[in-house]
Amino acid sequence: MPIPDSTNGTHQSEKVDVLVIGAGPAGLMAAFALARAGVKVKIVDKRPIKVAAGQADGIMPRTVEVFKSYGLSDRLLREGQQLHVAAFYNPSNSGGIELTDRVPDVTATDTNFPFEVTLHQGAIEAIFLDNMRDMGVEVSRPVVPISVELDEERVEDSNAYPVRVVLRHTLSEYAELEGRGERKEEETEVVNAKYVLGADGAHSWVRKTLGIDMEGEQTDYVWGVVDLVPETDLPDIRNKCAIHSNNGSCMVIPREGDKVRLYIQLDGKDVIDSNGRVDKAKAGPEMILNAARKTLHPFTIQTPDSFDWWTIYIIGQRVAERYSLHDRVFIAGDACHTHSPKAGQGMNASMQDSYNLAWKLAHVLRGTAHRSLLRTYQFERRQYAQDLISFDKKFAKLFSGKPYSELNIDGVSHAEFLQAFQTFGGFTSGLGVQYAASDIIVMKNQHLAKNVPIGRRLSPRPLIRAADSRPVDLHDYLASDTRFKLFVFTGDTHDPHQMAKVETFANALIPNPTSESSSSFFAGFSSLQALRTVFDIVPISSERKQTIKYNALPNALWEHWSKVLVDAVDMTGKIGGKVYESLGIDAGGVVIAVRPDGYVATIAPLDGAAADLGSFFSTFMKAF
Amino acid sequence: MPIPDSTNGTHQSEKVDVLVIGAGPAGLMAAFALARAGVKVKIVDKRPIKVAAGQADGIMPRTVEVFKSYGLSDRLLREGQQLHVAAFYNPSNSGGIELTDRVPDVTATDTNFPFEVTLHQGAIEAIFLDNMRDMGVEVSRPVVPISVELDEERVEDSNAYPVRVVLRHTLSEYAELEGRGERKEEETEVVNAKYVLGADGAHSWVRKTLGIDMEGEQTDYVWGVVDLVPETDLPDIRNKCAIHSNNGSCMVIPREGDKVRLYIQLDGKDVIDSNGRVDKAKAGPEMILNAARKTLHPFTIQTPDSFDWWTIYIIGQRVAERYSLHDRVFIAGDACHTHSPKAGQGMNASMQDSYNLAWKLAHVLRGTAHRSLLRTYQFERRQYAQDLISFDKKFAKLFSGKPYSELNIDGVSHAEFLQAFQTFGGFTSGLGVQYAASDIIVMKNQHLAKNVPIGRRLSPRPLIRAADSRPVDLHDYLASDTRFKLFVFTGDTHDPHQMAKVETFANALIPNPTSESSSSFFAGFSSLQALRTVFDIVPISSERKQTIKYNALPNALWEHWSKVLVDAVDMTGKIGGKVYESLGIDAGGVVIAVRPDGYVATIAPLDGAAADLGSFFSTFMKAF
Repeated sequence: MPIPDSTNGTHQSEKVDVLVIGAGPAGLMAAFALARAGVKVKIVDKRPIKVAAGQADGIMPRTVEVFKSYGLSDRLLREGQQLHVAAFYNPSNSGGIELTDRVPDVTATDTNFPFEVTLHQGAIEAIFLDNMRDMGVEVSRPVVPISVELDEERVEDSNAYPVRVVLRHTLSEYAELEGRGERKEEETEVVNAKYVLGADGAHSWVRKTLGIDMEGEQTDYVWGVVDLVPETDLPDIRNKCAIHSNNGSCMVIPREGDKVRLYIQLDGKDVIDSNGRVDKAKAGPEMILNAARKTLHPFTIQTPDSFDWWTIYIIGQRVAERYSLHDRVFIAGDACHTHSPKAGQGMNASMQDSYNLAWKLAHVLRGTAHRSLLRTYQFERRQYAQDLISFDKKFAKLFSGKPYSELNIDGVSHAEFLQAFQTFGGFTSGLGVQYAASDIIVMKNQHLAKNVPIGRRLSPRPLIRAADSRPVDLHDYLASDTRFKLFVFTGDTHDPHQMAKVETFANALIPNPTSESSSSFFAGFSSLQALRTVFDIVPISSERKQTIKYNALPNALWEHWSKVLVDAVDMTGKIGGKVYESLGIDAGGVVIAVRPDGYVATIAPLDGAAADLGSFFSTFMKAF
Repeated sequence: MPIPDSTNGTHQSEKVDVLVIGAGPAGLMAAFALARAGVKVKIVDKRPIKVAAGQADGIMPRTVEVFKSYGLSDRLLREGQQLHVAAFYNPSNSGGIELTDRVPDVTATDTNFPFEVTLHQGAIEAIFLDNMRDMGVEVSRPVVPISVELDEERVEDSNAYPVRVVLRHTLSEYAELEGRGERKEEETEVVNAKYVLGADGAHSWVRKTLGIDMEGEQTDYVWGVVDLVPETDLPDIRNKCAIHSNNGSCMVIPREGDKVRLYIQLDGKDVIDSNGRVDKAKAGPEMILNAARKTLHPFTIQTPDSFDWWTIYIIGQRVAERYSLHDRVFIAGDACHTHSPKAGQGMNASMQDSYNLAWKLAHVLRGTAHRSLLRTYQFERRQYAQDLISFDKKFAKLFSGKPYSELNIDGVSHAEFLQAFQTFGGFTSGLGVQYAASDIIVMKNQHLAKNVPIGRRLSPRPLIRAADSRPVDLHDYLASDTRFKLFVFTGDTHDPHQMAKVETFANALIPNPTSESSSSFFAGFSSLQALRTVFDIVPISSERKQTIKYNALPNALWEHWSKVLVDAVDMTGKIGGKVYESLGIDAGGVVIAVRPDGYVATIAPLDGAAADLGSFFSTFMKAF
């Protein structure tokens, strides 16, 4: 509850664990993830109401996986459009364009969501807003920050609220229209926060206030975007289309309902003013649609009664030099990186930033991790952003180039474009993102599970439950609940030798407060229950499903009967099997430690796993 | 709205299309399905509140498919438990029982739901109640019928309300407890209905009042049922178990949450009174659990703090001699048939009864079908009930028999039991139900699609959408929206010869009111829009997905871009393909007509399909 504060001129002050500034995708993912983790979070936004249409809309497979890990993917998939095909149109001999190829839009197949989802930003935001509301968290708006101060002396004090932010509640005609407008004058409010996240967009006030520079530059590429329900004879209007014509390039992105988004590269001189800025007065949706029409010939597209949304912009390709001030005030999303829209990365990169940060903040706030854990946020996400810009530069060049023809032998050929499209597929899907070695990514024992790359997100795999042979997926056991997952590949639990190793590992998890300091990290927890708030343990046996008894495994390894798995085909003989083989795990058994965000942290042989993993976790986690 | 009626002693009267008496699974399925079809329905029940626990709980694959066709399966699957395994325990050499075998619980694999779902009856009913409430339909309760009269002179008058039912609103302590108890004395109400459905259970008042006899007899089998959260070392406690011991038989049915249901055959002399009726005072959950314990040895099961539910009953195996009075007053569900609980058929058979009736009533009420259509209800569902009883007799005998051993060579061997279990699998899953030839099942042209048995429910098949290559299932196109589905297997639409046939068929669908009477049945509709309220047309091409243009098919064949399908593997190469081949359809093309309840009605060659299908439909449907 707000506390009256008579020591300054403001009306109220409040203490929160985390203050999030900005309620776009990055800010909402942060606020939602933190609230779900039990963190006291406050989120403010300068916009009086949420986005209603347009803006970003492409959701990549890795992002769908993250939504699934929060139980949010059903709604996302119900509301969104799926893109399975990328169709390529190129100049035909008879003048206009023709269909050259249809290929998978997502080239990575090692996912349960091998497609892109499109859904307008407001609908994505609504998923977070509705789920946050259920936890009692709402966005305060319209609210803008006026000042932020960090007490540098208290940066390392875990009980301190060292960040002081003054917020101003602005007057708004919208608020009055919505009946929320009792406030008659602008009020200010002080928030004392343990941590602050600036997720306030490309023109981030937080970033500028912290004095963080953007590195990189503005490009010459000017893009127009228009959303409409098209009447057209283009047969691929429901596929993503990359259209290269001799009259320009165009991308078609089908959207939810029957809507379609067209991206068209524009001639800068038509829309850029004398200061080098986009002049929206010089352009409009009809102009953008007309530019698209030139590329689409001989196919036609009618002018609709109304356009759903449109915009026009110059692409910047820049990354923030730093992502935080003393790991107390952070920035995320567009505040950290800007790039072109073509590969559909924007909203994804933004949400993944906060997703990476949220679990780290949660553990540090709870006292279950050292503050050093927070350093890995910039380390991991800034590298990612740099890779994204570098990819974007290459791809933008190819996309904007003139198509190859006999008259233009320096042009971009379809083969060249397709190769780039597919080479970058792992990156654009979000599935191939690789975090480098750090405290929380230790490249050890990779040979014991050679197809489980340490530093990448764990792949899905079909398995069955030992107790009832129900088919499940490894990803069903990757809930974003802030817990590290220990997947115990036990080998064949019918083999007493293997079972002995399993029991040794299980015994090392049991609290042993009276033992010497040489006892395992895990035994340092006060109870199995305490340990299970940090570690979720899931045994996966290679025993036959006909003989396995889930309750023959040591009790410490299973919280519930539903959490003992088997590598076997299901009862129909159609799903599952050969997971050990496909992951490159041999019969001796391994334990795979997966981070709360689904990335493989490290690997240990089953024999000696407790010591190996204990030494890994003790560098950044605390037993309690 | 109720209309005051001063001509008799009752307080109010009302006109409805259909009055449903009884709000168990059969009544609720009927009321829900009719309301969804736009029929004005009223439903009453004598119980003051809905079932809270226990009762029927096994949902078979076909029933899950029906729920899916209404968009209700997600909730069912989210709330229910899935049974994938049937485990068999038999006497071991060392005294007690041991695991003999684990086999698929559902032997049919040609379904997307190859498992049984368990969920207590109250939860199933809640799915209907919640969805009915959204349509403004609620159950009036506690209400009992006092009299039913049919004006036989108006039976064939489509504008008449020939059934007059007097209902009594009974006093209820529950109603008062719930604050609904303003009513100070019992009131009666008159309902004038076009149709009445008695879904009022095994002791059906409607059936008795109509003077319909039950054929068949009571058995000697006495069963005890108990629901509990077990603490046990039985490793198959989360599988369906058929346990044959030398101390009796027992079935274990895992339930939602961690609950389990035990079915135990009891010794009649312990629980049957001198009138041959079950005496509940002589038994209780502890007694039933103790009987189970004897069969489970050496495995143990603790007595829980409380039991979730229990009951005890003698099995009857009987079928009603008729299912209606002049096809104006019907009975459905337990009112028509009673049998043993072991194969988990009860709730399924009941809901399938009303599902069969609902679409027929909807079309007759709208005037789009002749009243003769209603005759097929008894014809189809009574035959099914007889098959069910006949199966039940065989299975009950095997289940209740002593297990085979060297000392009991006449006993039932595991091999014998397993064979019966698997032989009956198609029937128990509901997938193998076969309706016989009638006006609405015409066994023609079976050779043109030899793996699409006419009279059975259409199997699911993976396909992709032509416009966007999204993988879908044939069953996604079987919404229970009262429309007949015409699946137009076009052959290769890239082939002009084939396309000519497709165009001929499409042209025959276009309204042609000025033509001779020799014009097709379909052309008799006033508009394509009118035709589409009765027929949902879905073309399925065998053209390659790389070349197909969804908009190259004639407009009359597709309502929306999402409804043109292709027989091809999806973009990942993992799903779909070879559907023509697996259904036995050749390149020449066929049209498969599927009933609103998913059963294959008839098959026509593409060449001449309009005439063939027109003559089929004109026997029971009316163009308008």
